[in-house]
Amino acid sequence: MKARLLRGAAIIGVGMTPVTSGSGKSLTQLFVEAATQAIEDSGVSSIDSIYVGNMMSGFLQNQEHLGALMATAMGREGVASYKVEGACASGGVAANAGVKAVLSGLEGVVLVGAVEKMSGYTTPQVTSGLMMAEDKARVAGTGVTFVGLNAMIARQYMHRYNVPHEALAGFSVLCHENALDNPRAQFHKKITVEDVLQSPLVADPLRLFDCSGIGDGAAALVLTSLENARKFTDSPVTIAASVVATDRISLYQRPDITTFEASRKAAAQAYQTAGVSPDDIDVLEVHDAFSVLGIMALEDLGFASKGSGAQLVKDGTCARDGRLPTNTFGGLKARGHPVGASGMYELGELALQLSNRAAKCQVPEASVGLAQSVGGIGTTITVHILKRSDQ
Amino acid sequence: MKARLLRGAAIIGVGMTPVTSGSGKSLTQLFVEAATQAIEDSGVSSIDSIYVGNMMSGFLQNQEHLGALMATAMGREGVASYKVEGACASGGVAANAGVKAVLSGLEGVVLVGAVEKMSGYTTPQVTSGLMMAEDKARVAGTGVTFVGLNAMIARQYMHRYNVPHEALAGFSVLCHENALDNPRAQFHKKITVEDVLQSPLVADPLRLFDCSGIGDGAAALVLTSLENARKFTDSPVTIAASVVATDRISLYQRPDITTFEASRKAAAQAYQTAGVSPDDIDVLEVHDAFSVLGIMALEDLGFASKGSGAQLVKDGTCARDGRLPTNTFGGLKARGHPVGASGMYELGELALQLSNRAAKCQVPEASVGLAQSVGGIGTTITVHILKRSDQ
Repeated sequence: MKARLLRGAAIIGVGMTPVTSGSGKSLTQLFVEAATQAIEDSGVSSIDSIYVGNMMSGFLQNQEHLGALMATAMGREGVASYKVEGACASGGVAANAGVKAVLSGLEGVVLVGAVEKMSGYTTPQVTSGLMMAEDKARVAGTGVTFVGLNAMIARQYMHRYNVPHEALAGFSVLCHENALDNPRAQFHKKITVEDVLQSPLVADPLRLFDCSGIGDGAAALVLTSLENARKFTDSPVTIAASVVATDRISLYQRPDITTFEASRKAAAQAYQTAGVSPDDIDVLEVHDAFSVLGIMALEDLGFASKGSGAQLVKDGTCARDGRLPTNTFGGLKARGHPVGASGMYELGELALQLSNRAAKCQVPEASVGLAQSVGGIGTTITVHILKRSDQ
Repeated sequence: MKARLLRGAAIIGVGMTPVTSGSGKSLTQLFVEAATQAIEDSGVSSIDSIYVGNMMSGFLQNQEHLGALMATAMGREGVASYKVEGACASGGVAANAGVKAVLSGLEGVVLVGAVEKMSGYTTPQVTSGLMMAEDKARVAGTGVTFVGLNAMIARQYMHRYNVPHEALAGFSVLCHENALDNPRAQFHKKITVEDVLQSPLVADPLRLFDCSGIGDGAAALVLTSLENARKFTDSPVTIAASVVATDRISLYQRPDITTFEASRKAAAQAYQTAGVSPDDIDVLEVHDAFSVLGIMALEDLGFASKGSGAQLVKDGTCARDGRLPTNTFGGLKARGHPVGASGMYELGELALQLSNRAAKCQVPEASVGLAQSVGGIGTTITVHILKRSDQ
């Protein structure tokens, strides 16, 4: 029954701004740019509602009420519109809210968008902003940073599974390679494993090129029922599963920090809902805010056993011409990671792949795709499975 | 078809903390208290998801990721959970998200809750926090305050419709009267029109007793399908309409500031969806953050013509023993207005009225109720219509 219902939601429009640092564009300008693109791409004239994913606007921009703000800026005041937040997975949860709106039958055409503006602030400001994803009362005041917590994961992962840093670094190399063909990517710079290992240390063992950067960007999708979608396009992309799962808010509360339980849980539910297995996934977008997270995602989503994820990168499986093309537009590392927006970029990129519109980033014959987004330290996970509508 | 669908969602549990200033309770403690009450009240053992309404946690508490934070604090980590924000209407939009989740068929039992903690901060901090509901780029930096903007509305309203301040003040008197019987109300203090007119000036013409106060609180509801609801209670309350509408973000952009277009729009859609008219409403909860807004709501929701709303208060229509009992637990003015939570309090109070559980605040024979919540200066409006399940 769930699968039947989910076959009812589809993506008919995609919009994404380039990810940049220091463009000088406001939160509103970024959102409107992506939203306008998505609406034009879809061909719809009216929309019933807008869901805005964002994490840090209250803290960094001292601006809430993004729903009405963006609706007004789009010239679409009047429509239902509100903000949805799930830390770094805000884009993923905004898409989830939009899917439910369509499936509820209450709204016919829905815009889901997500935006983050992180440049133009000091590093301490952005660092404090990111720590809002952790428990302020118990962790955020201890002095550990968001990178520091992820570094603890990397250290433990490398130790427990005897995986060298080189193996993790391969994920960054893959992403930078793929981003070369993505005009919207923040970084167009081919790097090597050696470059990663010799880049400045940020939080031991994570080095600069293990980490995604600070950027601004927005992405948006137009969603509607599959039935309605066919009026606008011959190649709508079906949302076959949209799942959100959480874990304990703080890393210190977890029995095992080398796996994200919420990722496993969300994936299992998504596979069941979509009626597919990991073997059916043709293209994959994972949340590689740090190299180790990309590798862990390959494992937690069922593509490799624990400790062996890096092998899929090393042996070419994850390359665009491999069996499981991964982060085909550059991922968080190289396309860029405007945190609250990244989950929506992943869905936009997947939708382009599944409708053969990925240009130089296109992978051959992709029918089923999976996108995973992570909020906090593996705390809120969204997993979406998309399919070509003829599947 | 919409009406049919909406008959499918019901409230089976209600929880609300007292509204207080300076209780010392954290955001998390407040939310868990209300959520636990709602779950116990419902009798459910498991829930599928949590939607957390809140406006200011990023700014005041430097804490986001409330979805996972609250799920963890409730001992329910794992479930889908995220934050929903629509400024002062955050409680209303969180309820809307929960209704869509139920109607989508994806989630069986849903907790919607909303929380705000405003005490313990300086007045400038809270004032700046409230202004996040306006456009930061164009208005929030001009020096005008949130009360100041509402004062402009009051001044214009009084001038245009030749309504004296005494008439607006009657709304505050009504709320304080009703709050005397509500143990969860922030203020238990009977006041007169003279008290309002002689209270300190805050922003001309609004005086202290025209304004809701600063408080902390949380409210929560358990929602499920009407079919499932009957397994848990003989008296579920049906959500017959859940509508969100927006207006231009800034007051200066509106052609007429004495009416909230979004309120009229949301109400019209809600009446149509629920298949009722204003004449059918037996009990009403409106967003009286300022006395003038309570009066305007009576008009914009269709109970009085423009300029004549205050008459309904004066002639006793809005009293608990009148034809249209309004703000029966004290409203924002006297029950209290923890901003992001108030929309959820209204729904909780309405649900208690419609299931004959309102104790000393109970109104006789209420079958249909309406709750209106306002985010920003009339910018985001939610209107919910609830019915006794035998209606």
